[in-house]
Amino acid sequence: MFESAELGRTLDKATYKKEQPKLREALLEAQFALYESKAFPVIVVIGGVDGAGKGETVNALNAWLDPRHIETNAFREPSDEERDRPPMWRFWRALPPKGKLGIFFGSWYTLPILARVEGRGSEDELEQRVDEVNRFERMLADEGALILKFWFHLSKRDQKKRLKRLEKDPKLRWRVTKSDWQRLKIYDRFRTESEHVLRRTDKAHAPWIVVEGLDERYRTVTVARTILDALNRRLAKPNERSKLLAPRPPAAAGKNVLEGLALAKALDKDQYRKALEKYQGALNLLSRDKKFHKRHAVIAVFEGNDAAGKGGAIRRVTEALDARYYRIVPIAAPTDEERAQPYLWRFWRHLPRCGHFTIFDRSWYGRVLVERVEGFAAERDWRRAYSEINDFEEEMAAYGIIVAKFWLAIGKDEQARRFKEREATGHKRHKLTEEDWRNREKWDLYVQAICDMVDRTSTEVAPWTLVEADDKFHARIKVLKTLCGRIERSL
Amino acid sequence: MFESAELGRTLDKATYKKEQPKLREALLEAQFALYESKAFPVIVVIGGVDGAGKGETVNALNAWLDPRHIETNAFREPSDEERDRPPMWRFWRALPPKGKLGIFFGSWYTLPILARVEGRGSEDELEQRVDEVNRFERMLADEGALILKFWFHLSKRDQKKRLKRLEKDPKLRWRVTKSDWQRLKIYDRFRTESEHVLRRTDKAHAPWIVVEGLDERYRTVTVARTILDALNRRLAKPNERSKLLAPRPPAAAGKNVLEGLALAKALDKDQYRKALEKYQGALNLLSRDKKFHKRHAVIAVFEGNDAAGKGGAIRRVTEALDARYYRIVPIAAPTDEERAQPYLWRFWRHLPRCGHFTIFDRSWYGRVLVERVEGFAAERDWRRAYSEINDFEEEMAAYGIIVAKFWLAIGKDEQARRFKEREATGHKRHKLTEEDWRNREKWDLYVQAICDMVDRTSTEVAPWTLVEADDKFHARIKVLKTLCGRIERSL
Repeated sequence: MFESAELGRTLDKATYKKEQPKLREALLEAQFALYESKAFPVIVVIGGVDGAGKGETVNALNAWLDPRHIETNAFREPSDEERDRPPMWRFWRALPPKGKLGIFFGSWYTLPILARVEGRGSEDELEQRVDEVNRFERMLADEGALILKFWFHLSKRDQKKRLKRLEKDPKLRWRVTKSDWQRLKIYDRFRTESEHVLRRTDKAHAPWIVVEGLDERYRTVTVARTILDALNRRLAKPNERSKLLAPRPPAAAGKNVLEGLALAKALDKDQYRKALEKYQGALNLLSRDKKFHKRHAVIAVFEGNDAAGKGGAIRRVTEALDARYYRIVPIAAPTDEERAQPYLWRFWRHLPRCGHFTIFDRSWYGRVLVERVEGFAAERDWRRAYSEINDFEEEMAAYGIIVAKFWLAIGKDEQARRFKEREATGHKRHKLTEEDWRNREKWDLYVQAICDMVDRTSTEVAPWTLVEADDKFHARIKVLKTLCGRIERSL
Repeated sequence: MFESAELGRTLDKATYKKEQPKLREALLEAQFALYESKAFPVIVVIGGVDGAGKGETVNALNAWLDPRHIETNAFREPSDEERDRPPMWRFWRALPPKGKLGIFFGSWYTLPILARVEGRGSEDELEQRVDEVNRFERMLADEGALILKFWFHLSKRDQKKRLKRLEKDPKLRWRVTKSDWQRLKIYDRFRTESEHVLRRTDKAHAPWIVVEGLDERYRTVTVARTILDALNRRLAKPNERSKLLAPRPPAAAGKNVLEGLALAKALDKDQYRKALEKYQGALNLLSRDKKFHKRHAVIAVFEGNDAAGKGGAIRRVTEALDARYYRIVPIAAPTDEERAQPYLWRFWRHLPRCGHFTIFDRSWYGRVLVERVEGFAAERDWRRAYSEINDFEEEMAAYGIIVAKFWLAIGKDEQARRFKEREATGHKRHKLTEEDWRNREKWDLYVQAICDMVDRTSTEVAPWTLVEADDKFHARIKVLKTLCGRIERSL
């Protein structure tokens, strides 16, 4: 993969002088068109060996383009707020909004490759990382991002020459440190491992461009021209995203998971009170556990039919918790900052630090429920959401976050009864809108969407709990009991 | 101040049982009205002695109200991202948006009081903190926030009783630690210092409510009722903010700072090239200084007449910097998340960490320039902006951030010339809008606004640099030279 980046390609000064102004102006025009259209974000990943001109090129891009609409992100040691969350959180928070260019200097490639080079981490683990990266970039591309990944290469011989040259120059000697020479020693291993990763992650929607790093003029023009061409191609067809993934077959018709539920399961008041005290007490103890505070967090997702009692169930959970350690995130329409980002961005931003609970009142499942049924999302978008969601939850679980998802199910008759009751009661009136009545007409479509959702996203690491909710007492206790069980098993 | 909170007030069970449901429903209705109107945020500060029921009350509020629209913030040890910024940053980032309730459990009061109690920090320093707090809360109130501050009190005798009672109970014994008894020893000092701070920060727009913490029913109902009353009063008159501060006298008419500028100051190309190399080199060195990376950051603000060459000057600065260490923030219309916050919030969120540069292309001065002249901000709002901005910049400077502000001034004729040139040049066409021509008609109003701005916000810690910009070479060099000088003096 690196052979053609060791040919000693250069760009002579005269050609450069002639080409550079045209290239710059064209780039600036393209960037401005991107900014005006706000159609998609551009994600530029910069990787490669030391001394191959990564920093210089990024600085040149900033000088050539309008730096006001570029966000350059360098990833050094993670901050403690970053360490307290899954590894990908720091990249999600740095994603550029639509219309802007985000340069990732050091990226999701750095750690997986280094781990292998330094002998930490097995081959299997690397494959897993590579898989995750591929799915992440696939998601970005599906969301419309234009992704370009540049790998700056220098041959071992040129690398050595460069260090020697620097050391000779009294003004530049400071730039060469011991670790530079150490890195030269592991050059071959670094080359092997990175070539492997590059090959496995070189995709049409997120291609690697290997850049020969020896000649400054050559590499700058190569990178600039690649960005310009890709940008212009996409601007010409801003809606042409990567091809639709083959849709999965719809879930088998006939019997479904909801039909199997005994919605009427009930507790009497006395049983309820006793169980409530028991499980709220248990949850409180678990939430104060030292191990929990050190290594875990809880994401509790509440979905359910309208009027199924989500609010009441959430309240029985939060009553057991210290207000300092939980946050409820009600999901309504996205803000304009959220609309400028990939769909899952607005959930990533709320991930709790260790020891904390984040409770989502409705969630990312809106994509495959209301957005699917009402047609707010295109079919290709809600279809790919299943696997994106599974990836998202897997990343959380891998970090130690306990992902508990509750579907509160009530029957159609019980829902009608509750709607009427709400219309009659003062402080509950505001909970009922005309939309709620309208949604009932699509009951069967929702059933299909719910069953598909459960079929496709109930995973070992983040299972759905179907909660029979015609009886509120039963529902609340089942939620509390499940939550306690999940935390207990994690500790 | 605490005497009336040592009377042993209680609320009997029967009264509580009768009152509580009504109070709860009224609170919920008021909270819902607040959320629907999105008219203002509610900021509830919780302070006081240990064991006086702070946590229990916050939990009760979360249980009584709709917890989905409450954000409870506890402030423990600052994270490293917080330590890398001025002390108030962590509170700004936690401010609730309009329509929501933010509970600050531990707040901007905690550190100033503790510093005095523990013998760190002089009386003068405390007064300074108190002043800052008063101005911060004044700003919040002016922005429309409803502020309620609760101080939970227990007499020393009751405090001791409480600890002894807990120690006797085998189930609760774990709650009493050594530091609880130590804190009892410094009770008197804590009482004196906090009483002093409370008295000095008790304002009509941000009142302290001292709550006797002995009886759970009494304290919960007291806090809930206080919030309910204040909320309902404000909801009845959502636009009634605190009274207008007496406006400062306008700047003296006649001679002004802009008139004194020799706009035509110029450099020839050769002088420019030499100076550019010199100062960009110096800036590069300074930006890599170890001390700078450890303790300083730069905020550079660029304002100026339309077409004064802000973009070009910024570019000459960033050319000298490593792209990983700067970010340019172009200020355009606020996002909807920003509109739901106090005016300065959208600038606070961009404060750089140590070692970084943040360059604002237009800035918070929009308030007293375009918003004033075009009438986008009410007079009372832009008038109070001067002192709010001075506070903001003082906080940054106190932390070690170098605040450099540049006004790029060109003459009316030179501006006309540049507009016409832009109309003619391809890639500069998009820089010119009809608005630019319209703004020229208000030239004199802008002159008045600029002079007022410089008069009122050019401070020792964050001076304005007026840059004669008819000649671009001169302007760019003056900017670079000034910036270098400012950083040098700080190191």
